[in-house]
Amino acid sequence: MTQNTDWQSEARRMVGVTPWFAAIGGEVLSAKAGQAKARINWREDLIGDPQTGVIHGGVITSLLDQLCGAAVMSALGQPMPIATLDLRIDYLKPATRGMAIVAEAECLKVTHEIAFVRGSAHNEADQDVIALCTAAFMLTRPEGRTS
Amino acid sequence: MTQNTDWQSEARRMVGVTPWFAAIGGEVLSAKAGQAKARINWREDLIGDPQTGVIHGGVITSLLDQLCGAAVMSALGQPMPIATLDLRIDYLKPATRGMAIVAEAECLKVTHEIAFVRGSAHNEADQDVIALCTAAFMLTRPEGRTS
Amino acid sequence: MTQNTDWQSEARRMVGVTPWFAAIGGEVLSAKAGQAKARINWREDLIGDPQTGVIHGGVITSLLDQLCGAAVMSALGQPMPIATLDLRIDYLKPATRGMAIVAEAECLKVTHEIAFVRGSAHNEADQDVIALCTAAFMLTRPEGRTS
Amino acid sequence: MTQNTDWQSEARRMVGVTPWFAAIGGEVLSAKAGQAKARINWREDLIGDPQTGVIHGGVITSLLDQLCGAAVMSALGQPMPIATLDLRIDYLKPATRGMAIVAEAECLKVTHEIAFVRGSAHNEADQDVIALCTAAFMLTRPEGRTS
Repeated sequence: MTQNTDWQSEARRMVGVTPWFAAIGGEVLSAKAGQAKARINWREDLIGDPQTGVIHGGVITSLLDQLCGAAVMSALGQPMPIATLDLRIDYLKPATRGMAIVAEAECLKVTHEIAFVRGSAHNEADQDVIALCTAAFMLTRPEGRTS
Repeated sequence: MTQNTDWQSEARRMVGVTPWFAAIGGEVLSAKAGQAKARINWREDLIGDPQTGVIHGGVITSLLDQLCGAAVMSALGQPMPIATLDLRIDYLKPATRGMAIVAEAECLKVTHEIAFVRGSAHNEADQDVIALCTAAFMLTRPEGRTS
Repeated sequence: MTQNTDWQSEARRMVGVTPWFAAIGGEVLSAKAGQAKARINWREDLIGDPQTGVIHGGVITSLLDQLCGAAVMSALGQPMPIATLDLRIDYLKPATRGMAIVAEAECLKVTHEIAFVRGSAHNEADQDVIALCTAAFMLTRPEGRTS
Repeated sequence: MTQNTDWQSEARRMVGVTPWFAAIGGEVLSAKAGQAKARINWREDLIGDPQTGVIHGGVITSLLDQLCGAAVMSALGQPMPIATLDLRIDYLKPATRGMAIVAEAECLKVTHEIAFVRGSAHNEADQDVIALCTAAFMLTRPEGRTS
């Protein structure tokens, strides 16, 4: 549907202009039918460990949180406010100094009030997973609707 | 022990100068005997939702992640590298626009290789919890030691 | 209110007669105003590791999941269906062979649709934490109500 | 390697005879190269909600916890003690009354001391996900080895 596509591009745009997401240099590459992809460049001010130059886990969490939100929005049939309810992040290995990070997320289930999402992040140059995440989002559907 | 105290101030200082933690304006207020406290000011570039001006969840996760690390370091008898293994965050309510956030964390258990921590964040002006977190950290003890 | 108290005893009774909870020998000791306490005896068929006789983590998760539900129900002003949305459990140390386990949970926040709970379990004979948990529950309020 | 295969069958057998796992009727169907599959039959004493006859979440957590352990063991090159460090479970929808549940898990990363696993469970008759889990396991490698 054209209408649906329009709202989804709009959703992707909205996520992209969140001040915090812009501040860390995050970019949503795609968000469609519950699947989303984002990217972030390595930057000095994002470093978590000065000795290794590795990006801070909180940056990766921010990236994944925002990306999971984009995946949820792209899975919904209409725009509505969503909010992260809870999120678990597993840090499998440090990101590589100087290298961009790519993350992907998939919305696995949408109920009337909740959406469940899984995501992961890896160095742009390889497929080794840096971090995994699982999150639940709260949906605020327009009143009067029942699904 | 004087030596221990010195290492703990050192630990607190180290956490404070992490580029990323400095970039979001985080400040460790105290870190002693497994208990730590930190603070962050509201700032426009930390906003997650442009319509409400609420700070992004990723910022609060960054704050809690870093603070939990400070709590773990302050619980250890000697300096050693630590890394967040995994972390769960629950967002109970949005932070209030324009208000500083205070977070507290407690290291509940230290084994030879792992430390478990719990934390929470609230608006500086009240005690209503904004977010809860539970995390596990990996410890890298100096070789040759057995505990 | 007498009515409220009655519903809470009823809630406690209901949790107590869940077939699964009965099967593992769980007993809710108290559930009031968002705080609940439960107990489980050590039993051979609950063993997770035959060499040590330690109770299986899944039993402790079952205990905590059920107990968190009791804490949520006791925090609500009226009976309504609730369901565990997600739960994180941290196993800090093995339970002691032959020893009963006591668990406590506290409902920290109730919104219109979600309740957040934290709990922990320890050997009955000491206060050393065996496991921590954090959970989110979905509430299904009777229709027509707004809070 | 024959030796490797033998230890893996042995691992699968060990998981299968855990008293608790046997008590809930769990059966490991396969465990090889970091991937494992298990099955559990619906049974009256596993019910969590007497009104719907749905299996208790704690049973599904027990199944997934055990299965994730089997996946980890099958990913290791040699037998060694492992223990669940922490686990997050998301309940996407209730299991169907009277229907067997099948679960699958994959060990995504093994470091010297930690293994990360993801799993999911669904009704045997369809592919709709009932529950997701993410877990971290602690490995106790034989002393003197370095990997």
